Amino acid sequence: MAEDFQSALTEREGIEQPLQVNPNLVRRKRKVLTLDDYVQGILKGDRVTLSRAITLIESANPEHFDMAQAIIEQCLPHSGNSLRIGITGVPGVGKSTFIEAFGKMLTGMGHKIAVLAIDPSSERSKGSILGDKTRMESLSVDPDAFIRPSPSGSTLGGVARKTRESIILCEAAGFDIILVETVGVGQSETVVKSMVDFFLLLMLAGAGDELQGIKRGIMEMADGLIINKADGDNRAKAIGAQAQYRAALKLFPRTENDWTVPVEVCSALECYAIDKVWNMILQYEAHTKANGYFFKNRTEQFVNIFYNWINFTLQNNFYNNEATQKEIDRLLPLIREKKISPYLAASKLIDKR
Amino acid sequence: MAEDFQSALTEREGIEQPLQVNPNLVRRKRKVLTLDDYVQGILKGDRVTLSRAITLIESANPEHFDMAQAIIEQCLPHSGNSLRIGITGVPGVGKSTFIEAFGKMLTGMGHKIAVLAIDPSSERSKGSILGDKTRMESLSVDPDAFIRPSPSGSTLGGVARKTRESIILCEAAGFDIILVETVGVGQSETVVKSMVDFFLLLMLAGAGDELQGIKRGIMEMADGLIINKADGDNRAKAIGAQAQYRAALKLFPRTENDWTVPVEVCSALECYAIDKVWNMILQYEAHTKANGYFFKNRTEQFVNIFYNWINFTLQNNFYNNEATQKEIDRLLPLIREKKISPYLAASKLIDKR
Repeated sequence: MAEDFQSALTEREGIEQPLQVNPNLVRRKRKVLTLDDYVQGILKGDRVTLSRAITLIESANPEHFDMAQAIIEQCLPHSGNSLRIGITGVPGVGKSTFIEAFGKMLTGMGHKIAVLAIDPSSERSKGSILGDKTRMESLSVDPDAFIRPSPSGSTLGGVARKTRESIILCEAAGFDIILVETVGVGQSETVVKSMVDFFLLLMLAGAGDELQGIKRGIMEMADGLIINKADGDNRAKAIGAQAQYRAALKLFPRTENDWTVPVEVCSALECYAIDKVWNMILQYEAHTKANGYFFKNRTEQFVNIFYNWINFTLQNNFYNNEATQKEIDRLLPLIREKKISPYLAASKLIDKR
Repeated sequence: MAEDFQSALTEREGIEQPLQVNPNLVRRKRKVLTLDDYVQGILKGDRVTLSRAITLIESANPEHFDMAQAIIEQCLPHSGNSLRIGITGVPGVGKSTFIEAFGKMLTGMGHKIAVLAIDPSSERSKGSILGDKTRMESLSVDPDAFIRPSPSGSTLGGVARKTRESIILCEAAGFDIILVETVGVGQSETVVKSMVDFFLLLMLAGAGDELQGIKRGIMEMADGLIINKADGDNRAKAIGAQAQYRAALKLFPRTENDWTVPVEVCSALECYAIDKVWNMILQYEAHTKANGYFFKNRTEQFVNIFYNWINFTLQNNFYNNEATQKEIDRLLPLIREKKISPYLAASKLIDKR
């Protein structure tokens, strides 16, 4: 039953394997925190409490739902005072190295940064093939940085929904720059775009196919483009690519925020021109705060949160019911034996409620 | 109100813009088909009816829900008699060229193939920068091929959910090989993997970073790997990459289907070794049908369908209600003016039902 519920919660996002919940591990948990413990800990900037609160929010266990919602609700008035930056680019573009260099520069300037990584990469091995453990080595020990990878191979929708809430908690904990890293060139960009103020696209100077590697839709979402790995012999090529991208961007329709998308070259590895990226973002902030887009965008993000939370709650309420679970247990074998179609079974189950 | 509902339906998948439904276009629609028209048309293999049925299924309009479900239900007994092949790879790897060559080979062998493309690329321009119109030029006019791109920049979850149903309809229409193309290296692979029999990963012989461009999780999902673009001078490099991938795959845990993942080189452009890919898939089919995995996997896909349909129906039922829509209309301005938190507003709305 528990398995089925977990399965349902993951399944609704399109992932098939149920979350692996080890009951022994669940029982050996640390001191239970009260709502007040959580909120006060977060507001004090306590990283352990912040981490635990995010874990609670990410939990698929319906028993955690009320507490999670209460924590978010109490942190909400203390949130919003950050610059939220989404960072994307194909694998291999150097996102981690960039975030390491960019983050260190920002903490050096006195900022407190939180890095939330949306990485739905590996279900089975929980990691990418090339050493996730060595990612952001120096940033991960920086007392002014908080790095939170997605806890498991959770799914896009799930992680992304919770990322909205993680942003709120990080802001309440005093982090004034939130970096949301998204992997790949797929769907997660749209979700991340919908929760940030500025969306940065990292590119490479490719071998002649500068426009092939990235979908137009992703480029259209970007508020700024960076040609990364402009190091050594590659710098000239990067500058060439910069010109090409600038030309390509002119073909795009004007954005709602009335912003000319800048294209810069940098080398995260050599820490070259990283400050230009920050200047680009500050200019964007000033521009969109002046024309009102910044606040309008933030307001629409509240509407997104509203719908996301409705949909999350609907499913949570539905599955968190003993009679429903019993009926699911009865229906699953019938579905597997093809005695009932999955569509009819789903309709019948819902009609009973 | 209509806008809010559309917005809610799209939002639940993480996309923010409401679907653009032009009421004038909706009104100027063709002859309304009955359930029987749809089902008989599909079973006869009529492509226009099949297309219209898929459009109906993909519709976010709750009024289409019952008809869509009835069509699926009636096609279901006629489905399942195909080989379902998922195809993925980073942008630029040559998926379209591969599918064109592969598909032409298959129709030449007497197969009827359906190509369902999951391409959530561009929300704003509805296309990629490099000519989607020229994709699969020769396959698209082949009478034994049916090509169905995702209709718009719909979201992953939404498209993918409907792709399961599109497969059923295509099978009922007599297509015996279904190719599900997924774009990018992101999340959609997990969803596609969950609806196919065989998952094919296309790779390139990269410039020294053969393992960088693709996430381990994607590689772990693959039932077969192809190094594409093994043409001209590139063939030696591709063969080198083949050896590297073979070595890398040995590091992976044994899969549940007890299958040694093959790695082949091919050139879709030069139609070189495309038949090897087909042989690979036929061997996989024989192997997994012999050990029972094939059928077990298909059975679990029915369970996935069950949960997906529950979740889809839950949201459809919730939003398709006048009182709820009125309450949403009342709450949205309060959320925008920050007079109520979106979390509290969502909870209140749900408690009222």
